[in-house]
Amino acid sequence: MKRIGILTSGGDAPGMNAAIRAITRKAIYNGMEVYGINYGFAGLVAGDIRRLEIADVGDKIQRGGTFLYSARYPEFATEEGQLKGIEQLNKFGIEGLVVIGGDGSYHGALALTRHGYPAVGIPGTIDNDIPGTDFTIGFDTATNTILDSLDRIRDTATSHVRTFIIEVMGRDAGDIALWAGVAGGADEIIIPEHDFHMDKVAKRIQEGRDRGKKHCLIVVAEGVMGGNEFAEKLKEYGDFHTRVSILGHVARGGSPSARDRVLASKFGGFAVELLQEGKGGLCVGMLDNKVVASDIVDTLENGQHQPDLSLYDLNQELSF
Amino acid sequence: MKRIGILTSGGDAPGMNAAIRAITRKAIYNGMEVYGINYGFAGLVAGDIRRLEIADVGDKIQRGGTFLYSARYPEFATEEGQLKGIEQLNKFGIEGLVVIGGDGSYHGALALTRHGYPAVGIPGTIDNDIPGTDFTIGFDTATNTILDSLDRIRDTATSHVRTFIIEVMGRDAGDIALWAGVAGGADEIIIPEHDFHMDKVAKRIQEGRDRGKKHCLIVVAEGVMGGNEFAEKLKEYGDFHTRVSILGHVARGGSPSARDRVLASKFGGFAVELLQEGKGGLCVGMLDNKVVASDIVDTLENGQHQPDLSLYDLNQELSF
Amino acid sequence: MKRIGILTSGGDAPGMNAAIRAITRKAIYNGMEVYGINYGFAGLVAGDIRRLEIADVGDKIQRGGTFLYSARYPEFATEEGQLKGIEQLNKFGIEGLVVIGGDGSYHGALALTRHGYPAVGIPGTIDNDIPGTDFTIGFDTATNTILDSLDRIRDTATSHVRTFIIEVMGRDAGDIALWAGVAGGADEIIIPEHDFHMDKVAKRIQEGRDRGKKHCLIVVAEGVMGGNEFAEKLKEYGDFHTRVSILGHVARGGSPSARDRVLASKFGGFAVELLQEGKGGLCVGMLDNKVVASDIVDTLENGQHQPDLSLYDLNQELSF
Amino acid sequence: MKRIGILTSGGDAPGMNAAIRAITRKAIYNGMEVYGINYGFAGLVAGDIRRLEIADVGDKIQRGGTFLYSARYPEFATEEGQLKGIEQLNKFGIEGLVVIGGDGSYHGALALTRHGYPAVGIPGTIDNDIPGTDFTIGFDTATNTILDSLDRIRDTATSHVRTFIIEVMGRDAGDIALWAGVAGGADEIIIPEHDFHMDKVAKRIQEGRDRGKKHCLIVVAEGVMGGNEFAEKLKEYGDFHTRVSILGHVARGGSPSARDRVLASKFGGFAVELLQEGKGGLCVGMLDNKVVASDIVDTLENGQHQPDLSLYDLNQELSF
Repeated sequence: MKRIGILTSGGDAPGMNAAIRAITRKAIYNGMEVYGINYGFAGLVAGDIRRLEIADVGDKIQRGGTFLYSARYPEFATEEGQLKGIEQLNKFGIEGLVVIGGDGSYHGALALTRHGYPAVGIPGTIDNDIPGTDFTIGFDTATNTILDSLDRIRDTATSHVRTFIIEVMGRDAGDIALWAGVAGGADEIIIPEHDFHMDKVAKRIQEGRDRGKKHCLIVVAEGVMGGNEFAEKLKEYGDFHTRVSILGHVARGGSPSARDRVLASKFGGFAVELLQEGKGGLCVGMLDNKVVASDIVDTLENGQHQPDLSLYDLNQELSF
Repeated sequence: MKRIGILTSGGDAPGMNAAIRAITRKAIYNGMEVYGINYGFAGLVAGDIRRLEIADVGDKIQRGGTFLYSARYPEFATEEGQLKGIEQLNKFGIEGLVVIGGDGSYHGALALTRHGYPAVGIPGTIDNDIPGTDFTIGFDTATNTILDSLDRIRDTATSHVRTFIIEVMGRDAGDIALWAGVAGGADEIIIPEHDFHMDKVAKRIQEGRDRGKKHCLIVVAEGVMGGNEFAEKLKEYGDFHTRVSILGHVARGGSPSARDRVLASKFGGFAVELLQEGKGGLCVGMLDNKVVASDIVDTLENGQHQPDLSLYDLNQELSF
Repeated sequence: MKRIGILTSGGDAPGMNAAIRAITRKAIYNGMEVYGINYGFAGLVAGDIRRLEIADVGDKIQRGGTFLYSARYPEFATEEGQLKGIEQLNKFGIEGLVVIGGDGSYHGALALTRHGYPAVGIPGTIDNDIPGTDFTIGFDTATNTILDSLDRIRDTATSHVRTFIIEVMGRDAGDIALWAGVAGGADEIIIPEHDFHMDKVAKRIQEGRDRGKKHCLIVVAEGVMGGNEFAEKLKEYGDFHTRVSILGHVARGGSPSARDRVLASKFGGFAVELLQEGKGGLCVGMLDNKVVASDIVDTLENGQHQPDLSLYDLNQELSF
Repeated sequence: MKRIGILTSGGDAPGMNAAIRAITRKAIYNGMEVYGINYGFAGLVAGDIRRLEIADVGDKIQRGGTFLYSARYPEFATEEGQLKGIEQLNKFGIEGLVVIGGDGSYHGALALTRHGYPAVGIPGTIDNDIPGTDFTIGFDTATNTILDSLDRIRDTATSHVRTFIIEVMGRDAGDIALWAGVAGGADEIIIPEHDFHMDKVAKRIQEGRDRGKKHCLIVVAEGVMGGNEFAEKLKEYGDFHTRVSILGHVARGGSPSARDRVLASKFGGFAVELLQEGKGGLCVGMLDNKVVASDIVDTLENGQHQPDLSLYDLNQELSF
């Protein structure tokens, strides 16, 4: 393979630029040409494609977001869209594609694979909800960003003896809530993958109060319910001087952490090696601390992401 | 004066601990005794008071919040509450009081002053909305915290070509919105002290789009309207791929910036000098880069905080 | 086991407090009593020991350093010292001990084990150089701290077209240099575990210059040589407008990252479970993303830490 | 004036990019054309000059360093160099120049002024050592960066009961040492503008020890002596378990603080207004919290920067 393409798709995640840089440099180092596709699958279909040289990825490793931009593009679910995309790839002489993104991006890569076009997926999303990997690019940074907010909120919660409900991103996955919650010393962590009982939550808050605890932090993944809704329901069990914080999109941006940049560099380098060997239809991941490739069809059909629920149980014992 | 007290009141602000430390050390250095009053005026009336030694304020300068806690206590607006407070102060032999906080705290200090009890106010609030000073303790830190969020959000806004409405604290004062907005390169800054026209806002966004601008950030002080409400109204003028972020309480906490710690140290030291000279009924401030004391009655009755509106005009020219 | 002790030993590392908190809470939750030993093995021998309650570890998870203090104490290498330590443990009725620290601390735990006293080691050091685990508590935070400095230095290096030699901690282990170097986009990473040739380093810098590269960052682990010495030697091959930065102790402190707090919480919880089952003579670790326990004698005698040298090779291809 | 130029010179400082952005946008908004000159006076003489459009300064406000690069260029002290520079400016039709930088940059602007060419200086240096202004662009960020390091070092100093000597930048000016020292709770601050006695320093450390103080932080401005030299001299008075940290160039880079960005925006906007009115031979500054312009000849000949020595005295009382 002599010429490869890269696109980022879905929600941006810190470290996407580090992955683009790694792919570009590794490929050029190994004698390949690299093309960047702007705005994800939308740009692919539209032919918004340009050559990337070494200098184009200089001074990018530390930047949040994606300098190839991203976009939603449901039209790529249609065969028509997919064939148009492959047409563009052929027009530019691009023989293989690296797709960096989340679930939707993987489905795009899968579609290309099914049409016989070699595509490799790299998991890039703050949500950590991609099968085939223990960690996605951006998850570590997002967790640290949320943690920083939790630490700030605790200052205020302690100073005012208040209960804070902190809503964090995570439509279907509780990973950010779990990790940030354990790291931030949250009293309760409410995630889609574990049930909870509002009366027990209220009881624990009250017990903490009675013991002289100054603050109470409850982290809620948005997939369970909104922070304001949670506060409303909690109010039925007592007045806990509750305040709500909705952290939202802040977790998406920012300079990537060391771990996310290293992960992105490894994933990017490995994806190039796979394409170099002519392999496609794969997705890259970190499993048991090793970089691996899995069949993308199999991963999307049978794989299922599961958060580390041992953290849930641990937190119950540490925050009582 | 041989024995003084300190309390923090109202919303906590980063740098309050640095002020408590400065007051305590400066006073002890000059041969006085220091008492800390927990939970603001509520703790004062309840007699929740304890001696502070040098070691009690060690390792506190870098901490957010207030280790003397804070609380709302509307009862201190009554003469009964005020007399009870003075009774407690007399009981502990405390001859003068430093009150650190915002507008409400100043009114508490004013009440004590009117009863002939020497109190000195120190402006501590992230909102910067206290007359008698150009800057309050906590404002610089809060602005930097909001700015960090703006920088993060811009990564995502750029990557996705989106418009972000960012609601920041500021019920009556647009200072945080103004400073963070200018520093964050906001396209529009909506504050209570300046009118705005939604149609013009929409027009500017569209013009930026047409010029190829990738992102648009609009900072809205909560005192004007909520971020969601703003987004709703903007939608009437076009679809700008709008997202809303409500930064809320995050800006309250965190380790204080260098400037807030220096300001707090100066204010604290000066407040002790005033009490040492037997002076009360004053509030401390920074005016034209000089630490000054003003009459608290006069300041509260005639003073009025005005944000630096030159920043508003400047931003109109810089963000077009 | 009904009563356990905790000590921290060797250089402090961010996350040690999170580990102490986890041990304390998990143990109390499971009906045990917990004693904290100040100043490591020195305090153990001296009997500087006190009961820890839940509130003692409140508001500690986010703090750098170790609130149990640490100290070097070579005397614990003697049998006399060890027996005195066990005497103190018996005096306080402490039946098992958790030792958090680096290589030296593990040897202390090993000595206790050999005397039949149940001790469990937790790897806490920024250097990541402990056998029996892929990651130590503090490594992730230290790497991010160094990375932040690299990002800052790159701003200046780019603005002035300069070469920076950045000396980082790591007497025998190149882990911090490797991870921070890859994440920071370093041009060269010089570590004890890999040879290097100054002439090739100089040649690569010159080639980068010729290609129009603005900056050059060289990360040197102190175990290889000092930054100033490196700059002197490099000078023999040409004038690269070199500046030296020695980052030193800054990497030791600071609030722990999310990952380090989660790692510390898991390690702490698991150590309590081991002691609860009456198990000692073990050290806890994270291997292949799983929390495990290894025999401490075997680990110290046969284990050897090896950094992830695939990062070295990857960086050669990414930074050319 | 219809066409203006900008250059940055001397050591880079965070906020220089925010100033370039403000100048560029304000000028274009007011119907002028803007040219950026790379590599300071060296690039001016060499004609390394290009047109700047609005988009060129987009996404730059948050970046450290200077995207116009900087360079030392002693040759600009000669009349020959200066005339060549003016020749280039005339060639490009540039009618006025904004010079952002420190002392040396001001002398360049002064030289142009003496040749009748309108130049305006903007104080941009982390050292804060420019006459005609209370604050320079970059000082606030650098102080916060040093403060962050002090906070980290205190974690370690406390955990190990050690004395840390922290050498910070400041060849002739103690501003960074003073502000970061007060904000970081330093026990001693050693600056060029105030004498000190090593025996008294040692005595204070010992007294702190005797009182049970865990850590001791001594901030030394490099202009007084190096950190290692200080440690050597201190050792003559006793063994204080001393460690040395040399923070160096780290303070130069990084994303500018809110205050530095606002200051840079104000300075930039005001410089354009001055040139628009045909005024040159001026330098911009912030005096008593107001943006002002001073005669550059007078400022350089008679002005003298003085740090806020009240901070020195205050620290003596707060850190005892």
